[in-house]
Amino acid sequence: MSDAPGTVSAKDTEEVIMEATFRALSKHGYTDLRMRDIGEEMDLTRQVIHYHFDGKYDLLSSFLEYVIDQYEGSVEVDAGADPRTELDARIDQCLFGPEFEEFSHWDRMKVYHELYTHAQNDGEHREIFNEHYDRIRGSIVDVVEAGIEQGIFAPVNAERMGQLITDVIHAARGRRMALGHEDAPDEARAAIDEFILNSLYPDE
Amino acid sequence: MSDAPGTVSAKDTEEVIMEATFRALSKHGYTDLRMRDIGEEMDLTRQVIHYHFDGKYDLLSSFLEYVIDQYEGSVEVDAGADPRTELDARIDQCLFGPEFEEFSHWDRMKVYHELYTHAQNDGEHREIFNEHYDRIRGSIVDVVEAGIEQGIFAPVNAERMGQLITDVIHAARGRRMALGHEDAPDEARAAIDEFILNSLYPDE
Repeated sequence: MSDAPGTVSAKDTEEVIMEATFRALSKHGYTDLRMRDIGEEMDLTRQVIHYHFDGKYDLLSSFLEYVIDQYEGSVEVDAGADPRTELDARIDQCLFGPEFEEFSHWDRMKVYHELYTHAQNDGEHREIFNEHYDRIRGSIVDVVEAGIEQGIFAPVNAERMGQLITDVIHAARGRRMALGHEDAPDEARAAIDEFILNSLYPDE
Repeated sequence: MSDAPGTVSAKDTEEVIMEATFRALSKHGYTDLRMRDIGEEMDLTRQVIHYHFDGKYDLLSSFLEYVIDQYEGSVEVDAGADPRTELDARIDQCLFGPEFEEFSHWDRMKVYHELYTHAQNDGEHREIFNEHYDRIRGSIVDVVEAGIEQGIFAPVNAERMGQLITDVIHAARGRRMALGHEDAPDEARAAIDEFILNSLYPDE
């Protein structure tokens, strides 16, 4: 570690590498990424990457966890909110992104979706995505169940609805990026309200 | 074209190359594919590929159109069916695949989804996917509108519902492949019935 400045901790160094990886992926894409592309995006020498990570695959697995942690850490929902408010807030944050700058959020999502599709060939990444997917779906299922228990929502199949909403969010984000449909998140939000959440409020 | 047997037409040769490309992509994935991998999957010499296609990118664009044509050619819906039967049939065929063998259909879809995600970096592929997406969504919108006109369906926003259903289908297929959720298409079908199509039949 003689290359790293003495004042930088291992944690800080890893964050520098992760942000360099993010910039390199945004430029080159997953398909064409080389370790040297990452090295070119940071002030530290490339040896630092090899000190911290056991090759490109290990680095990308850590990067995937980094992106997910960052994403989840940014989802803030008022703990005292009623189920309806909380459900709306969770859907909006998944669809439109947390309070990063707009540009930055969608660039991160691009990498996320590229690695997601590639996980069909990759058991370890698949596991990381499955855990993340379960947490996202679970957080929606939980608030639907809470609303049903409190008599605010009609007694729907909460698991099924949570899964459906999670799928719609994923597809709308993917469509915005892959097909360039800038309004896909807004359209998805309107469709979720009109055709899915309406089952929670049958009397309105 | 001295390498190709005299009895093989250009059309047949292109199909041989397309099927070789499909097998090579299934083995190596989009990321690592080389022209020589395709050559190894066919009995014709590799020069034939270079005769028909102007490089890897040109070949993959043709391959994408080939997969889409094959997919669309296989979607058969009884022309005399009532809107409700036709809508169910279209959703099922998109979710569960046409009458290929199961294995073959999902292998084709893997390639489709990998190229779809990669289209975020690729204007030409994006255009091909956009046209295909419009046709899929359009075929669902059309049948919903026909049902409304005939008084069989309640007067919903057909465009919005068609888009929502198309997104759910895409996400469920992607989740089956990327995350290994074998039951994703069945779950999506149940969710579409319970939470989306129910708006078409408010009195049931």
